[in-house]
Amino acid sequence: MTENNRMKKLKIIKIGGNIIDNDNALTSFLDNFSKLEGPKVLVHGGGKLATQWAEKMNVPVKMNEGRRITDADTLDIITMVYAGKINKNIVAQLQASDCNAIGFSGADGNTIVSEKRPVKTVNYGFVGDVKKVNTHTLEVLINNNITPVFCAITHDENGQLLNTNADTIASELAIGFTSIYNTELYFCFEKNGVLEAIENDNSVIENINTETYKTLKNNNIIFEGMLPKLDNCFHAINNNVQKVCIGKSDMLFDTNSKHTTITK
Amino acid sequence: MTENNRMKKLKIIKIGGNIIDNDNALTSFLDNFSKLEGPKVLVHGGGKLATQWAEKMNVPVKMNEGRRITDADTLDIITMVYAGKINKNIVAQLQASDCNAIGFSGADGNTIVSEKRPVKTVNYGFVGDVKKVNTHTLEVLINNNITPVFCAITHDENGQLLNTNADTIASELAIGFTSIYNTELYFCFEKNGVLEAIENDNSVIENINTETYKTLKNNNIIFEGMLPKLDNCFHAINNNVQKVCIGKSDMLFDTNSKHTTITK
Repeated sequence: MTENNRMKKLKIIKIGGNIIDNDNALTSFLDNFSKLEGPKVLVHGGGKLATQWAEKMNVPVKMNEGRRITDADTLDIITMVYAGKINKNIVAQLQASDCNAIGFSGADGNTIVSEKRPVKTVNYGFVGDVKKVNTHTLEVLINNNITPVFCAITHDENGQLLNTNADTIASELAIGFTSIYNTELYFCFEKNGVLEAIENDNSVIENINTETYKTLKNNNIIFEGMLPKLDNCFHAINNNVQKVCIGKSDMLFDTNSKHTTITK
Repeated sequence: MTENNRMKKLKIIKIGGNIIDNDNALTSFLDNFSKLEGPKVLVHGGGKLATQWAEKMNVPVKMNEGRRITDADTLDIITMVYAGKINKNIVAQLQASDCNAIGFSGADGNTIVSEKRPVKTVNYGFVGDVKKVNTHTLEVLINNNITPVFCAITHDENGQLLNTNADTIASELAIGFTSIYNTELYFCFEKNGVLEAIENDNSVIENINTETYKTLKNNNIIFEGMLPKLDNCFHAINNNVQKVCIGKSDMLFDTNSKHTTITK
């Protein structure tokens, strides 16, 4: 661990739909984020905007068990909304707060390579599972005091863009950076953390480890959408990411703010 | 000029609608472009796609003397189509040809700062006139063998994205780079160059200088859309850009291909 102690810290911060969907919440978050010291990477989801634009363009939204089926038209809309409207507006707002940012998809700088999900029972269409993260170019930029801002799009190295889960992008980036930084991964969402009772935002479970995760799953305290998020957390913490937290974005700016920490 | 001789050459290449609108033409161009040796920057326009998507989304297209009026809805569409769909697909295709590219708007890396065009007789809306080009980050990337790919969007440093003419972006980038590179600027479009007779693609005027430009304008041989393009060319050649050419993209790959060269 001597080696690790000599490495700089890098924060990978993922923000979700609740921040993206609300202009005031986004502005306030970005203002705080820009002041956060040290190297950092922002990853953003798409929120409800992609669905709203799909409706405007009469592209039917197809879901399977809560997951979006990405046909060619849907991929166009996602690329336009995520990499265009959301990403460029975030970058412009960060510049206004003197945070020098550059927007990225996984195609830019060949940073995140994925492969189209094989068709088993469901054909998810143009959805990519991450295969490889290339950090060299990002490291050069971070060393030049630039903050990369990632949208949830990757590519297959054969010219095909692919829709990829933003939580997965955040955890894979965090893992990819572990050889050069002590990485910390923060999943910001609308709740104070993982909750004992979903309707009570004060019932935060402050620590979850591999053992307690099993128990929480068996007791149906953690279920549905929380499961893939926590799987991403454990994937990261089991692959040399130093710190993994879930909660409101307040946890980044106020050390007393309650949140859930994931440990081995 | 001794200093200049020691500087590396950088090519700024602008492609327009005719290449963007045709998938085969774009693929063929990008395949050739990826093989072009030495540092290079690509700038792309938007073609007919922005208008097509505006129609799909029922956003009325408003023009004044051939120029798009950019209200808030139109800016959204332009940002989605230019920075999203077109830019990311170009980057993914370049990666597939082993050309390591990163997509840029002027907000990314704070590379191109513009100001909203003041309202005189016409309110063009969210249209930006370029004020400043910051090349430092781009130089770092180019030195790392990365090709920046610019769409025609800039920002005002206060969080506002602005629609900006792609020819102008290309010439301002070329000028901005002159302190570190010998820059060459190539405007690729659907004709062999500036033509004596617009219907005859073999009537290329091989050289235009300040004097002959005046004569060509006075004799109405050059008119309408060609004038702002040529004004951009002369702006560049009068501000230390070493070479400025207009023609089909063939001029980049085949030295015998006819085209127009602009000189002082």
